[in-house]
Amino acid sequence: MVGGGQLARMSHQAAIALGQSLRVLAASPGDPAALVCADVHLGNPDDLDALRDLARGAEAVTFDHEGVPGELLRTLQAEGVAVHPRPDALLHAQDKLVMRRALEGFAGTPEYVEVADAADVDGLAARTGWPVVLKAARGGYDGRGVWLLDGPDPGLVAQLLASGTPLMAEQAVTMRRELAVQVARSPDGQAAAWPVVETVQRDGQCVEVLAPAPDLDPATAAAAQELALRIASVLDVTGLLAVELFDTDGTAGGLVVNELAMRPHNSGHWTIEGARTSQFEQHLRAVLDYPLGATESTAPVVVMANVLGAASPVVMPVDERVHHLFARFPDVKIHLYGKAERPARKVGHVTALGDDLDEVRARAVLAAEWLSTAVWADGWSPYDADARATRFPRTMQRRAVSRA
Amino acid sequence: MVGGGQLARMSHQAAIALGQSLRVLAASPGDPAALVCADVHLGNPDDLDALRDLARGAEAVTFDHEGVPGELLRTLQAEGVAVHPRPDALLHAQDKLVMRRALEGFAGTPEYVEVADAADVDGLAARTGWPVVLKAARGGYDGRGVWLLDGPDPGLVAQLLASGTPLMAEQAVTMRRELAVQVARSPDGQAAAWPVVETVQRDGQCVEVLAPAPDLDPATAAAAQELALRIASVLDVTGLLAVELFDTDGTAGGLVVNELAMRPHNSGHWTIEGARTSQFEQHLRAVLDYPLGATESTAPVVVMANVLGAASPVVMPVDERVHHLFARFPDVKIHLYGKAERPARKVGHVTALGDDLDEVRARAVLAAEWLSTAVWADGWSPYDADARATRFPRTMQRRAVSRA
Repeated sequence: MVGGGQLARMSHQAAIALGQSLRVLAASPGDPAALVCADVHLGNPDDLDALRDLARGAEAVTFDHEGVPGELLRTLQAEGVAVHPRPDALLHAQDKLVMRRALEGFAGTPEYVEVADAADVDGLAARTGWPVVLKAARGGYDGRGVWLLDGPDPGLVAQLLASGTPLMAEQAVTMRRELAVQVARSPDGQAAAWPVVETVQRDGQCVEVLAPAPDLDPATAAAAQELALRIASVLDVTGLLAVELFDTDGTAGGLVVNELAMRPHNSGHWTIEGARTSQFEQHLRAVLDYPLGATESTAPVVVMANVLGAASPVVMPVDERVHHLFARFPDVKIHLYGKAERPARKVGHVTALGDDLDEVRARAVLAAEWLSTAVWADGWSPYDADARATRFPRTMQRRAVSRA
Repeated sequence: MVGGGQLARMSHQAAIALGQSLRVLAASPGDPAALVCADVHLGNPDDLDALRDLARGAEAVTFDHEGVPGELLRTLQAEGVAVHPRPDALLHAQDKLVMRRALEGFAGTPEYVEVADAADVDGLAARTGWPVVLKAARGGYDGRGVWLLDGPDPGLVAQLLASGTPLMAEQAVTMRRELAVQVARSPDGQAAAWPVVETVQRDGQCVEVLAPAPDLDPATAAAAQELALRIASVLDVTGLLAVELFDTDGTAGGLVVNELAMRPHNSGHWTIEGARTSQFEQHLRAVLDYPLGATESTAPVVVMANVLGAASPVVMPVDERVHHLFARFPDVKIHLYGKAERPARKVGHVTALGDDLDEVRARAVLAAEWLSTAVWADGWSPYDADARATRFPRTMQRRAVSRA
């Protein structure tokens, strides 16, 4: 696996059960996967020799991020290495403009333009109105490389273009919520989809995943799964594909594709405990050309919440926070990535399972906040029962219905 | 963790989620855990310097087998190392005679004697009748170190004693079936029990675990859990304790202790998918003095079946067997240990979950056989539908009610 982050770390856990051991190409010995894998190569994903070393003797080469130059992967392929997803497919997860063009005609897509100068942005806005979403066509993630423009900003556009950032602009889609659907596809074309989930974002970053997506009508859920399976087939994806969707009006026709990822994805962490086959096991099964596993949920409601690095100075060591969390919620499962804390950095996640969405969600969110930091900058503390009751009332409010 | 076997391998998987990495003391770089762990020490568990190196900087030292001399562990303890289970507790899992003496008075125990010569065996038989079970008091496992004597055998006794094997003899208990109950206990005394399971043996080795134990009345189940919790408390166990029980008459009063193990145990592999907290995570939580996790089952019926090394020449590579298994049973979970195959050697296990015991059990057993070998010496093949129907009828016969 190219990359030594938390996705590689959790893939290694899954590989062990399959009788395999994951070799990772990590940037540093302190990377999450490098800390726990037996076979660690240190190197850069844009170094052909490092990729060749990684591939030597391996069954297949796959990825925990998109930052691998396609031309190097094509060279590996030409040398007989099984690369999954194949570089021609992976390109659609690396370049948003290529993705938009490929999906035209069969998937709901916002209006978009390639941006060669500021006039292209203004031209799009003349058709769709402001705001407009400006995006780096390559290299963005977790809200980075995305700018919401309320009006013309020729200075920003010029500055980004001058720094070599390939740009595109999209209509800002008005939506009810964000959904995600994951599918796996094997080299011989077998495919399987997990239940559609709702992803909850804060500051452009996924913070919660609700599985299955609450109040999603069966026809829309089926349409989302069929769309993801079709994209996987048309793009000839091997391994995992996550399709991030905007749910604009709550109907099957109102689904708009936001992003694609071709690897295990944050929106699928819930599957470790919440589905019969986890996304990590499934990715390996697909990449190794094994038949795919069952994707049924193991509980009526599963909620995953990300543990983010503390926004304020942390007064309690992580080990003590784990202690308190385990004492309070004996059934919540934690996954810590071995990463140093930085504000808003994903350093772990928690998963709660149960029957009642409000109850399970409150538990997961509280557990994640608990683990994220003991005392918040605003003085709120999860150790204060009154504060807890205020922040997590029995019936949680669903978040605002409309968002630009 | 002292030992690099499959128990350490699966403990490492659990450690990763907790943000930890397991350092193992393995005998060989090809050991199951050494193949997948980042931090592997090669050495022997009876080498004090190797144990000291292992302990340096670690939070705690624990074990995947009992073969560690107690005096070395006491030295580590005196040097300030947190050893769990503590050597005074572990002794009861290392020496069956010490265990029998400690449990007298509060746990059902067969009649037993220490064997200094063959007359001791015959003396026991004069009270209990033949057969009598002769056991190595130390060092036996998986049916090794156990001999069922139908009558006097002074030659065998003399030979074993001459070779330095410490011996004891026990009444051969007539029983309906074997049960096991696992509990975890933390250094500060918190304890938790999983549901009681039935273990199915073949040739003295566990081949299946049925969770929960079928048709076990609630009072007997509660009595078994209370017995295990009491043993853990009386012996001051830290970490996991597995209590293997003979169910002699199906009542709470008919439970007889067979063996103890103080580590993750084959009877608890089902907990990886089948319980909210796996035995591996729980063992680490106890050893690290974290609060313990919930032990509820995740399905009404869970069956674990061991994958044993092929008894006959194997005609199909394991990779291909996995392929066929996944194609047939997309929901069965496999765990392969990375071990070379030898006849009857435990090289992996499978777990199936569901609602109906007969159906789940047939699936697990078939999957394990499938993975064990493609074609059996007697010509039976899991690929033959008629043969499958014969071996696994819809309603499986429970095994014979009485066994010596």
